This record gives sequence, structure tokens and C-alpha cells, in this order.
Amino acid sequence: MTDSTRIALASRPHGEPTADDFRTETRTLPALADGQVLLRTIYLSLDPYMRGRMSDAKSYAEPMEIGDTVVGGTVCEVMESRSDRAQPGDIVLAYTGWQTHDIVSERHFRVLDPDAAPLSAWLGVLGMPGFTAYAGLLKIGRPQPGETVAVAAATGPVGSAVGQIARIKGARAVGIAGGNQKVEWLREAGFDAALDHRSPSFAHDLADASEDGIDVYFENVGGAVWNEVLPRLNKFARVPVCGLVSQYNATSAPTGPDLQPRLMSAVLTKSLLIRGFIQDEFWQEMREDFFRDMPAWVRDGKIIYQEDIVDGLENAPAAFANMLRGGNFGKLVIRVGEE
Amino acid sequence: MTDSTRIALASRPHGEPTADDFRTETRTLPALADGQVLLRTIYLSLDPYMRGRMSDAKSYAEPMEIGDTVVGGTVCEVMESRSDRAQPGDIVLAYTGWQTHDIVSERHFRVLDPDAAPLSAWLGVLGMPGFTAYAGLLKIGRPQPGETVAVAAATGPVGSAVGQIARIKGARAVGIAGGNQKVEWLREAGFDAALDHRSPSFAHDLADASEDGIDVYFENVGGAVWNEVLPRLNKFARVPVCGLVSQYNATSAPTGPDLQPRLMSAVLTKSLLIRGFIQDEFWQEMREDFFRDMPAWVRDGKIIYQEDIVDGLENAPAAFANMLRGGNFGKLVIRVGEE
Repeated sequence: MTDSTRIALASRPHGEPTADDFRTETRTLPALADGQVLLRTIYLSLDPYMRGRMSDAKSYAEPMEIGDTVVGGTVCEVMESRSDRAQPGDIVLAYTGWQTHDIVSERHFRVLDPDAAPLSAWLGVLGMPGFTAYAGLLKIGRPQPGETVAVAAATGPVGSAVGQIARIKGARAVGIAGGNQKVEWLREAGFDAALDHRSPSFAHDLADASEDGIDVYFENVGGAVWNEVLPRLNKFARVPVCGLVSQYNATSAPTGPDLQPRLMSAVLTKSLLIRGFIQDEFWQEMREDFFRDMPAWVRDGKIIYQEDIVDGLENAPAAFANMLRGGNFGKLVIRVGEE
Repeated sequence: MTDSTRIALASRPHGEPTADDFRTETRTLPALADGQVLLRTIYLSLDPYMRGRMSDAKSYAEPMEIGDTVVGGTVCEVMESRSDRAQPGDIVLAYTGWQTHDIVSERHFRVLDPDAAPLSAWLGVLGMPGFTAYAGLLKIGRPQPGETVAVAAATGPVGSAVGQIARIKGARAVGIAGGNQKVEWLREAGFDAALDHRSPSFAHDLADASEDGIDVYFENVGGAVWNEVLPRLNKFARVPVCGLVSQYNATSAPTGPDLQPRLMSAVLTKSLLIRGFIQDEFWQEMREDFFRDMPAWVRDGKIIYQEDIVDGLENAPAAFANMLRGGNFGKLVIRVGEE
């Protein structure tokens, strides 16, 4: 019998999540049934969408219930197997959440080639965030050569891929991030312009970096950056919306003025396309293209990525809250167990 | 020599247009040059988009200059011709604006078949408003059989066509208008539900009329109706935006709360498509379909329409201001001269 330590949702966060919103428990896992495997978590992905699932507001996914293990994608090692699909020692991609061990059915994991890429990359550039960037940019943003693509949270796992894919497609990439260190990394990653949204000259810098306007704005942040980008959008600009991390902790509508009429006027007068999406909408249609293109681009150095690996499941709640504040740098991954 | 009386823009309206924003002038037209025709205006179309062109804010069309004849589509009779493309007595569709006569080049009119439809219909259901409804609904809204399509200003020339085309395509049509008389007309036009947005029970009525949610909202109004529709939109709903008449006269952003974050959250969590458009984007691609379908639907009684014909060019400014307040009923047309 194996014990699993897990972090469960203790209460729905009001605003920013705190330690009190989580509780740690240990349980003993039962014996395997036919078709099941016992998994040991190596890496756990922390992503902004999890904040939405902690609330009970209707969203694109069902909310978690109080007492549920917090959800999340994981890279795991198979410890025992009663499935033909995996052998002990195999490395798999699963969705076992914030815990050290779990038992899952064979329909709920995918065996990885451990030599194809660093294991943590399957949670970032080669995983859900990378696919979000790939699908949203290419299916909704449709950047054309010579166009300007802007993205915020640009050192994050989605934003960094968006900018670099845009450049591969011949567009100019304008990356927006918070702080000097992140801006410096954007330059290393080949962004044509790298802007610090915390700078007092941000609005001016953005205008300089988009002299011909912005044709695609990949929205994963919302808030103040969006308000500066909107007037810079060109006619027929496309705005894929995959996240709004700046407002996930909001507890009420901000005070005025009401900027919705300004937004709708811009939609009308500039024939804008604004399209929300969740990556799974495009999974069937685009996954083959993704698994053809993305590993090759990473291997060839056309796409680089930054990871922020935090040791220890017990540090997940604090790391998660910090990420929502923009405090991390790169794809946030918890190292739950040794490789 | 022929005299033309015209209404020119005297000043840019601040908020609602007033009589002082216009001035009436008479000028003597010159002799025709080769390729030109002299036109006598019979019907002048008044449309909400004109309000935008009276402001100097950047929009989808260049603003008018002070002193310009106010723009607008017209149905005219050819009085003299130095073009092979038209003979005296021909009826043409032109864009000569708020005046009794004008001289235009042969590239700027289209000869109409005066027996095909009432002449004023070429400014409404068979003209730009009808095409706006047709293109925006079918290219952006893409209603599927059994889906629910909602539209405001539903007795207007765009909204009435939107709802009736939706029904032809097998969707349910929910029409929203102001006042009992308009609601009654929507029932005659076959809308599945007809709602009065001035009713204190409007939010409740809308919920009743869209039990399965709203799949397409054709936005030509903005403001309070939009705020009630947004929470009713289904996942993957489409929102073609062709007008925002409720906010054209606004002089500043409304006070809070700021509803933009709520809108963006809905875009994200419901994978919404919001797309502004001007009908001319689709003209090349869809005009043949339009001129095949729409006259047939009108002839077969599948699409009915309502006109509000006001006599006399001198009444155009007051009629225009009244339309922006929602005071007219049906396609607003000025009868400038006799048929």
C-alpha cells in the first residue's frame, strides 16, 4: 500500500488565495483494479486557469468542490501497472493534480518519450501552454508576414511561445512583461521589441514599438495593458483571449469610468475580432501539427523557454499565489518528486 | 441651369444633433461634363452611421468636414445625361446625400429596375441595411437550425431583416424593440419572441424567451440591452457588431462600475466571438447571393419590412435626431421629391 499526500481546496479564495484556502492530507491508496496504474508525481504544473476553478462562478470548466484535490497537469512515473498501456518505470503525462501519488485508469495518461525533451517541458512549451499559444495564435490570430503581434506576460509559457511563433511566421513580435530581468530575457528570445509594463513610459514605449499599429494582440492578462493596447489596434485586428490573469482575484467590478462602451466602439469602428478560447477546442484539429512543429522548433533553437521550478508540493499554494501576482519568471512547475 | 438645395454640416454635434448643427443652402449646379448625369433626389436614406461621420473621431469612414453636404444614400431620377450608362427618366441608386439635386459621374450610380420593388426599398431591405443584416448574420453569426438569434432595434431595417433571415435559416428569432406598437409588429413579422426593452420585466422576459440561451446576438444598439444579453449568451456564441446607436451621442465614458472586465471574462469563459464589421467588407463576396435571395424572400412574403417615410428635406435634421433616440418605427426615409 502506498500513501499519497495531497493538497485539497479548504475554502474558496476571496480575492488572492491564502494558505487557509488549502489543507494538506495524507491517505492510503487502495490496491489497483484492472486497467489502472499507480503514479508517482515528478512535476506538477501550476497555471492561472486553476484560480477560476477554485471559484464557484460558472466558467469553461466545472468548479472544484471544497475538499477536492486541487487540479493540475503532472508528469509522473508509473510505479505499478495493471494496464497493457504502461509498464513500471514509464514516464507519463497525466492530470493528477496537487498530490504525490494517485491511481488512474489507462484512459487518463499518455506515455512520454523521456529522451525527447526535458520532462518538465511537457507541462510548458510542449504541453498545454505551448499548445494554447500555437492554436490561438495560428487559428484566431492568423499573423501575416510583416504584421505586428503583441503579447503580455511574454516570458510566461504561453506568451513566450506566442511571440516566437509569430516571428517564425514572419511577423514582428512585441513582448510585454514586468521588470528588467524579464525584458532582458525577451530580447534574448528574439522579440523585436521588449517592453516593461511597470515603466512610467509604457504607453509611450508601446506606441514606439507599434508605429504601424498592432494587428494581433494575444490576450492573456487583461487590465491596464489591454487598455493601452486597444487604441493601438489596427483595422481588422484579431484578439485571441485565452486568459485574464490580472482580474482572476477580483472580487467585484472595478469602479468607473465604464470602459465597455469604448471597447465596443473600437470593435465597431475597427472591425475587430475578439475571440475567447480554451485550447481543447482545437486539440483534435491541430495536435498533429503541434507535435510536428513545436518539438522541432525547440530542438532547432527557434523557440527557447524559461522555467521557474519550485521544490516541494508544500510550496505549491504560495507559489501559485505569487504567480497570480506576476511574481514568477517563466513556466511555474513544482518538483514534487525526483526524476 | 438647375438649383440644388442642400443641408450642410454647420458644426459637429455635441451629444444629440440639434438644428444649429445644420444649415440649408441653395446653389446653382454647373453644366454637365462628359460622363456625368444630373440627378433629382426622390428618396434619401437616414441611417445611424451618419452620426459617426459628423464627429471628428477616427472611425471606419473619414469624418465629414464642416460645410460638407451631409452624406446619405439616395434613390434619384436622371434629369439629364452625358453618359451612355443612363437616360433621362432612369431611376438610379446613388450616394448624393442631403440635397435635392446633384451632378455625379457615371461611376457613382447604379440603374434600378423601377418595377422590381417599391423605390424606397432600395434604401432599406434591398439596400445597405438589408445587406448589413444578410452579410453580418450569415458570415459572422452563422445561425444553425434550432439555435436562438437575438437582435435589438428589431423593427429597424437591419434588425427586422436579421430576425426574419434567422428564421429562414431555421433558427429561433428573439426581437427586442421599444414600445407596444413595435412589439406587435415583430409578432406579425414572425419573430418567435418579441420583447419590449422598456418594460420593467425586460430582463425576466429575455430569460423566458431564451431558455436555452442565446447563440447569436446581432449587436446594433449597445448599452442596456447588451448588458442583459451578455449573461444569456451560450458557449461559442457569436456577436456580429454593426452598430451601437445607443452610444453615438455619448460625450464621455459613462460612470462606473467598469463593465469591461465582466465582458472580457464572458469572452474567455464562454469562448465568445465578437466581431465588428461594416457591410462593404463583404460586398464583393456576397452581393450576388444577396440579390438572388433577398428580393425573392421579399416577393414571397418571407421577409416583410416597415418604413417610416417623412416628407420634405427640411425635416431631415429633426427626423435624424429622433431616430437616434429610437423614436422612429421602421426604415427612416425622407421623401425629397415626387416619384
